[in-house]
Amino acid sequence: MSIKAGWKVKPHAAIIGAGRTAFGEQWYKDPEKLMMDAGVSAVESVDLGLGRRDIQACYFGSFLYQTTNKLGLVSGHMARELGINIPMNTTEAACASGGSAFYNACIAIKSGMYDVVLVGGFEKMTDRSSKIIDDLMFAADPYEFDSGFTFPGLYASMMARYIHDYSFGDQRCIEALAQIACKNHHHAVNNEYAQYRRDITVQDVLKSTLIADPIRLLHCSPVSDGAAAVILTKPELAKKYTDTPIYVIASQQATDDISLYTRESMTGIKATRLAVGKALREAGISIEDIEIAEVHDCFTIEEAMFLEDSGYYENGKAWEGIYESYESFKGSKHIPYIKNGKELIVNSGGGLKADGHPVGATGIRQIHECFTQLRGKAGKNQIDKDLNLALCHNIGGTGGIATVHILARDIHE
Amino acid sequence: MSIKAGWKVKPHAAIIGAGRTAFGEQWYKDPEKLMMDAGVSAVESVDLGLGRRDIQACYFGSFLYQTTNKLGLVSGHMARELGINIPMNTTEAACASGGSAFYNACIAIKSGMYDVVLVGGFEKMTDRSSKIIDDLMFAADPYEFDSGFTFPGLYASMMARYIHDYSFGDQRCIEALAQIACKNHHHAVNNEYAQYRRDITVQDVLKSTLIADPIRLLHCSPVSDGAAAVILTKPELAKKYTDTPIYVIASQQATDDISLYTRESMTGIKATRLAVGKALREAGISIEDIEIAEVHDCFTIEEAMFLEDSGYYENGKAWEGIYESYESFKGSKHIPYIKNGKELIVNSGGGLKADGHPVGATGIRQIHECFTQLRGKAGKNQIDKDLNLALCHNIGGTGGIATVHILARDIHE
Repeated sequence: MSIKAGWKVKPHAAIIGAGRTAFGEQWYKDPEKLMMDAGVSAVESVDLGLGRRDIQACYFGSFLYQTTNKLGLVSGHMARELGINIPMNTTEAACASGGSAFYNACIAIKSGMYDVVLVGGFEKMTDRSSKIIDDLMFAADPYEFDSGFTFPGLYASMMARYIHDYSFGDQRCIEALAQIACKNHHHAVNNEYAQYRRDITVQDVLKSTLIADPIRLLHCSPVSDGAAAVILTKPELAKKYTDTPIYVIASQQATDDISLYTRESMTGIKATRLAVGKALREAGISIEDIEIAEVHDCFTIEEAMFLEDSGYYENGKAWEGIYESYESFKGSKHIPYIKNGKELIVNSGGGLKADGHPVGATGIRQIHECFTQLRGKAGKNQIDKDLNLALCHNIGGTGGIATVHILARDIHE
Repeated sequence: MSIKAGWKVKPHAAIIGAGRTAFGEQWYKDPEKLMMDAGVSAVESVDLGLGRRDIQACYFGSFLYQTTNKLGLVSGHMARELGINIPMNTTEAACASGGSAFYNACIAIKSGMYDVVLVGGFEKMTDRSSKIIDDLMFAADPYEFDSGFTFPGLYASMMARYIHDYSFGDQRCIEALAQIACKNHHHAVNNEYAQYRRDITVQDVLKSTLIADPIRLLHCSPVSDGAAAVILTKPELAKKYTDTPIYVIASQQATDDISLYTRESMTGIKATRLAVGKALREAGISIEDIEIAEVHDCFTIEEAMFLEDSGYYENGKAWEGIYESYESFKGSKHIPYIKNGKELIVNSGGGLKADGHPVGATGIRQIHECFTQLRGKAGKNQIDKDLNLALCHNIGGTGGIATVHILARDIHE
């Protein structure tokens, strides 16, 4: 363990099970069926057994189920599927819907009202075809939509500004922002659930179709279908369900202007900065203590900005750290970011870029990935290290909301 | 006070302020602007002062903002409008979105994470015109939609079954289900925020346009725009903000099959029965102790079913109670339901029927109404009695979800 001796923390909740579907194109499954599949696999994953009637409340996160899937009142669908009449809640926070549902579920456990809570995220996007591009813009300012922006366009503005302000167009900066995609594709090769399990090269990225200059196709996370679920319990009950629970030691959410044009900065996400700062203080650790992180890489620029917003690299310097790390470690099973000789592995299962981005599912998929890696149960994709501390970062829109959760295997209460 | 001596209860939260917009047609206001108006009026209503920076989290409820208003990530809009970066959550539970947001806000206060939370509900429906009928069906089973049902059709099935099973077509039953509309219109006459402030007669109801036999136009709640908001704090902090807080002494939610065709019964709502039963047990009272109730009268049959689901009247007997009460008290400022000489006033401000039903706002509007009546601050519409206990009942779809909250003015912890 890398953290200070005597470190003590009181967890919000314990994670005792996790399940998910494969991400990608799921033509023959309704969204609520995908959610059920993930939920059932989470329930069945609990080592010492859990019945669906042991679940006392559910929290679901999804973004476009209404417009894209003509679906409402998800609770009523799930009550019928599960055959139980417990409290169920549905949270919408754009691409952070999963993270927001998890945040609310942690609060619910903390309130003492429930012993066992299921948290799920789902999204079914592919059958909406190209119309999904317009639907996704519900998470942006209407003026931005009306003036012709799409999400790649909004992130392209940030990426162009970043390259200009921090590297003056340095070729290494441009390559670093492509290397993020290469790293995340590489991490997905051994992930059996991932949408894209193939390596790509920096040249593949830089020669892929131009979407919104400087963003090219391979800088972008895909449109995906999928669902993920995790089971939470009170920390003091965790050992009843598994010998190896994972604890939620920080849970934070912050919001910011929905519109990019009213923000203080184009080269960082204020909501991330606030949420990650509060989460690290809550856990009593620093960002250097984190060993693995799931970062919201909807476009590669966002992973670079996280590395600065979290304080891992200095403002304007992430691209240099990324470039050096990638050149030093490319070819390794997992490619870490290095800083003062220490390593941080980001998006060990491929992230949004390669594992896939069914938006409402993403925040829960991130928790699933860290839960699995911290327990050493990631199979062929297991990181070859003893891991204790993980961080999950999920944002909505261009950063109108951010959730940050820190997970720990071994804690001292 | 009607409850037993020595009654003690530990409240979830205290309500210290409430605000709302007028309900009806609001052509020149965006939904997020309506929500802001209600939120600001709630903040300004706090007797001893509250600044918007004292709010530590927000919970919003809305149903169709995405499809109807092309709006997503409400948190990002509100963060910009309020100029604060606090955690904000959006809950969708069809017509119970407001109740569900309030339920989650109570959990948040109970968790100890926040001192002051704003809960809001909003909906802007009128500018969607007749398309809103299809959008609303997202809260029903897709098979029901595909076979031609609308919400009036689904409730008409329940109403027809109720009249058939429980009265064999007795004219007094048919009149009782019209009297509910007359009573609620009468209650709205002095409510300055209400959409319809005019009396109607039983003959008006029974001669109004047939919508879905036996449901006629004046059995139905309207399509409305509007918003409402309340401010919650920890019970122990309440007196810092007002000398007359109102306490939330029970907060319950239950779910059931989204589809009517898979339910056990067509003449009652199981989710209501479960939620109201649990709420009464939690508060340590019986339904006869409740003095005023806000009941989800989306169609008048639903108010009648509540009176049975809650145990106030015996199964199949509500229509007799309604008929007798109305005949005895019509013309009174508020028309109570009577049982063994005791009175229960339902929907004192007009309910969904006459106050209006901007769906996501309704659950919060109900809390606003009870908060105001319990404090004796309802102005011209104030009930002429000393009131202590109120109940709010909000359902989604045809009863796929129900929330029940019990409020008290004087408690003994």
